[in-house]
Amino acid sequence: MSKNVLILPGDGIGPEIVAEAVKVLNTVNNKFDLGLTLEEGLVGGSAYDVHGTPLPEETMGKARASDAILLGAVGGPKWDNLEDRELRPEKGLLGLRSGLELFGNLRPAILYPQLADASSLKPEIVSGLDILIVRELTGGIYFGKPRGIRTLENGEREGYNTYVYSESEIRRIAKVAFESARKRGKKLCSVDKANVLEVTVLWREIMEEVAKDYPDVELSHMYVDNAAMQLVRAPKQFDVMVTGNMFGDILSDAAAMLTGSIGMLPSASLDKDNKGMYEPCHGSAPDIAGQGIANPLATILSAAMMLRYSLNEVAAADAIEEAVSKVLDQGLRTADIYSDGMEKVSTEQMGEAVVKAL
Amino acid sequence: MSKNVLILPGDGIGPEIVAEAVKVLNTVNNKFDLGLTLEEGLVGGSAYDVHGTPLPEETMGKARASDAILLGAVGGPKWDNLEDRELRPEKGLLGLRSGLELFGNLRPAILYPQLADASSLKPEIVSGLDILIVRELTGGIYFGKPRGIRTLENGEREGYNTYVYSESEIRRIAKVAFESARKRGKKLCSVDKANVLEVTVLWREIMEEVAKDYPDVELSHMYVDNAAMQLVRAPKQFDVMVTGNMFGDILSDAAAMLTGSIGMLPSASLDKDNKGMYEPCHGSAPDIAGQGIANPLATILSAAMMLRYSLNEVAAADAIEEAVSKVLDQGLRTADIYSDGMEKVSTEQMGEAVVKAL
Ligand SMILES: CC(C)[C@H](C(=O)O)[C@@H](O)C(=O)O
Ligand SMILES: CC(C)[C@H](C(=O)O)[C@@H](O)C(=O)O
Repeated sequence: MSKNVLILPGDGIGPEIVAEAVKVLNTVNNKFDLGLTLEEGLVGGSAYDVHGTPLPEETMGKARASDAILLGAVGGPKWDNLEDRELRPEKGLLGLRSGLELFGNLRPAILYPQLADASSLKPEIVSGLDILIVRELTGGIYFGKPRGIRTLENGEREGYNTYVYSESEIRRIAKVAFESARKRGKKLCSVDKANVLEVTVLWREIMEEVAKDYPDVELSHMYVDNAAMQLVRAPKQFDVMVTGNMFGDILSDAAAMLTGSIGMLPSASLDKDNKGMYEPCHGSAPDIAGQGIANPLATILSAAMMLRYSLNEVAAADAIEEAVSKVLDQGLRTADIYSDGMEKVSTEQMGEAVVKAL
Repeated sequence: MSKNVLILPGDGIGPEIVAEAVKVLNTVNNKFDLGLTLEEGLVGGSAYDVHGTPLPEETMGKARASDAILLGAVGGPKWDNLEDRELRPEKGLLGLRSGLELFGNLRPAILYPQLADASSLKPEIVSGLDILIVRELTGGIYFGKPRGIRTLENGEREGYNTYVYSESEIRRIAKVAFESARKRGKKLCSVDKANVLEVTVLWREIMEEVAKDYPDVELSHMYVDNAAMQLVRAPKQFDVMVTGNMFGDILSDAAAMLTGSIGMLPSASLDKDNKGMYEPCHGSAPDIAGQGIANPLATILSAAMMLRYSLNEVAAADAIEEAVSKVLDQGLRTADIYSDGMEKVSTEQMGEAVVKAL
């Protein structure tokens, strides 16, 4: 039974890092006889350049037909001034997320022991760090309506967005979070702003309700401002955190940065059947695109996550993760994670080292 | 010409820390012949207990009549389960902010050299840190309407809030931020999520417009997720940051925590005439209330900020700040900032040491 993987390189460093992940995927495909078929598609600015839209019908069709998607990154200054905001690269990404109902975003923040020095935090604060942030990805203020910019009666303009969640939207992400916590340290911290925002009062209530089905998981609640503080102060107090789309965007990036090596962090965006899209946590880094110096490991680890969560190929996933650990042990480092005494390598060299380690 | 200062101790550790700040205020009042008249009022849970509302008419009247307000903190578990959300302590605080139109919230994050070790970040990342976060405080999603929880046609409930800013609201906070930047390092970073939220597209546009009046200040823009990362990675890249109410709540707490000593950080909330309310950045810490161990320095430094911004008593403000620096030099530390070899003191001892240093 062959499985289809859609490869979406995207913009900026996307194509470079995805190319290395594809090499790695091809290698495990052969080695473990996975029967994967890889297909490519366009999304983001590169899709706009060819088709005049960041999410062509063709890509959406391929995405629906695939068993899993590996994405590089989208966006760049080239498209930042597009007058029609619907045509910007980000809309391609948001369209994929919502069109495929990929509501469950898993963002691990893991400190690799080999890279402990890279963190801006003191070693005792972050050593052994392993947090999973579960972010709701297809609702909240990202997609809420009404939204826009209107002119008021007094002639001045007003911008507005709507932060909205229904019970069922909260319930389904709660389940993803509780299931994840159950497989890990059994501690779940739900982040909201229930002292100010009604929408998060409902969020908190539904979290409590779903918690009844998971008596083995310890649920706590934290206001988002305090969560941002606690991530800086003592991040190891957390196991799994769950929150809405906007707070999740902010907190997952902060958590990722605690490790000092965002070039290492993968992410998964899953639908209700665990079909998913996988992408590095970092962006398209247009400033270094085309130089062959970007770190492909987050994308390679995203491929491993894809094998694990959507394709059920645990052995192949393990193999990739071990290979990545091995190249780090060998002292190979791309520029973003380089430190004295290590060997600086290019995007391609890093990718090939992982292939070799496999 | 006598000036009225309204003292609002609030809840939790509020009364303890405010008592010490009042001693300090009385001392400079005499020493510098400031002619201040201090009056007390109730707000938050303690007001609810007496008057059945977190913001009694009487307090609001006193607040309007005063030249400046010094607040401790509000909130605590005792009132967390009040069914009517309008009666919770936080509503007292939010009511003061919006009733007095205190739209300009200044939150400095300063690392005291004497407390450099307290940070969870590496010394080279935070030494000399001095950021000012300017947060819009009376608009955005905190106050936007419509808001609430409603039942949908299919029978499930939905929570919703509205994130809204008008041009004039953005313009007036922009001016506060540019003026602040002009008095400091002349660098202003405006934080938004203009790649997703229309309301922040308008925010960015108005920031650019106001920037034309401040050619000496360098304006940049950053997405909120990246700002959260950059605060963790390299906070010293920032001078002044300006953002909306919700993002400001999150980022200012994260920035405060970078210093490791949130017990040291004051804040100011100003109206268009620089009349203002001053409060510590930290909360009411109900877990340690009544034990006499809370750090009063943030409140004492808030009193100094009040003298500087609203009462134009710069010499008295300087004197307080110097006195605080002196007690730190003497090695006096409350529990939250204690480290080996220092002298651990109580709330009261700390307050009295500052009085003595004056
Ligand atoms: C590119 C942008 C729209 C996106 C988001 O805000 O979700 C990104 O920041 C992310 O976190 O994946
Ligand atoms: C208590 C709460 C309503 C308040 C806020 O969110 O503004 C607090 O967190 C703050 O930052 O002053």
